[in-house]
Amino acid sequence: MEVFYSPEIKNGVCVLPEEESAHCVRVLRHREGDEIFVIDGLGTLYTCRLTDASPKAAVAQVLREEPDWGAHPYFLEMAVCPTKNIDRYEWFAEKATELGLDVIAPVIGDHSERKVFKSDRLRRILLAASKQSLKGAVPVVQEPVSVRQYIADAPADALKLICCCFEGEVPRTSINDVLDGDLQKIIILIGPEGDFSREEAALAVSRGFIPVHLGPSRLRTETAALTAVEAVYLKCI
Amino acid sequence: MEVFYSPEIKNGVCVLPEEESAHCVRVLRHREGDEIFVIDGLGTLYTCRLTDASPKAAVAQVLREEPDWGAHPYFLEMAVCPTKNIDRYEWFAEKATELGLDVIAPVIGDHSERKVFKSDRLRRILLAASKQSLKGAVPVVQEPVSVRQYIADAPADALKLICCCFEGEVPRTSINDVLDGDLQKIIILIGPEGDFSREEAALAVSRGFIPVHLGPSRLRTETAALTAVEAVYLKCI
Repeated sequence: MEVFYSPEIKNGVCVLPEEESAHCVRVLRHREGDEIFVIDGLGTLYTCRLTDASPKAAVAQVLREEPDWGAHPYFLEMAVCPTKNIDRYEWFAEKATELGLDVIAPVIGDHSERKVFKSDRLRRILLAASKQSLKGAVPVVQEPVSVRQYIADAPADALKLICCCFEGEVPRTSINDVLDGDLQKIIILIGPEGDFSREEAALAVSRGFIPVHLGPSRLRTETAALTAVEAVYLKCI
Repeated sequence: MEVFYSPEIKNGVCVLPEEESAHCVRVLRHREGDEIFVIDGLGTLYTCRLTDASPKAAVAQVLREEPDWGAHPYFLEMAVCPTKNIDRYEWFAEKATELGLDVIAPVIGDHSERKVFKSDRLRRILLAASKQSLKGAVPVVQEPVSVRQYIADAPADALKLICCCFEGEVPRTSINDVLDGDLQKIIILIGPEGDFSREEAALAVSRGFIPVHLGPSRLRTETAALTAVEAVYLKCI
């Protein structure tokens, strides 16, 4: 099933962006009258009929709408420090999108080696992953902020978890044990290769973040982040 | 913590292979008398004292042994069809090693686009991943066989699961529901991009494989394989 993306769907008419139009018309050779599937990136799948096979701005008429297409039964925001090797972060984001999450917040910690992060490239990867995994909603990629800022701004009405490695120092429970309740809105904070600073962890706890562990294995940052997503996903299947 | 590997540890003496010796002596500049950590790849960590800092064949005396170092409380064998893009398979194998598994069996299905697989490169990747994630045992990589052969040879005394996508046709249960019991020995079969053939799935079921699903998301082969490993791992934390 080939899925296209359009941010411009209104009054029953859908216009594909240039790149999507070229792929639809030049590569896949769709013609006027063909049925195509389009997501708006916000959660709805539109079944459309192509009315203008322009390779620059293809136009289609909406036939049917399917809201919450490929949706998951929780709201998950992953705040993860970008890895030194950005491929590993992009890999995590792609896999997390296949499983299902809502927001990726790149956060910069006191021990982060990577202090800058470009969100645009990640957005393109998540759009492709959403189309490939048949999801109507594309996860939102926030602009990077510091871990401290992120913690200060975190909402009160969410289950907030921080995965940190200070064995013994901060009492930690298994992520499984805190995910047994209502999974409506979850925020999970994952630190950089050098872990959080003591101050960041203390600040998070003071703001209602629950320190959790992901088991005995020593996991890389991106593996820890995906394991946290898997823990939420697997609770619901 | 820097960990070296040696397949040659006996009578309290450990000899490092050439590549490990060069890394130990030339790169990390270890000298006679230094304490170094060595795994045998079979599960034991050896604390040793370097007695001959040869960059070709470093020799160390064993001071202490720690069996089952970084071990996990289950035996997991993943039989996974190699992906078209081999990077994705290697990525799965690296992440699964971080979490903990015992055997990776590359299997070739009726619908596999990739019919050949080189195990040696994967073995090197898993050795590096085991050292990085502080595990004494390196997962075994089997030589590739056909899915049909693998199913025919599968042992009777294991919990055998097959993840297939035939919705409705084969009754499937969530992988969570079958992992609640004894997790001593588990075998999980994951198909290629084109899924298993009907014949392969029927053969597996006839040989005692339980058809399971990994939830509603449409996952790539390597994501499905890692999700199955996560399901086992997360049951034990």
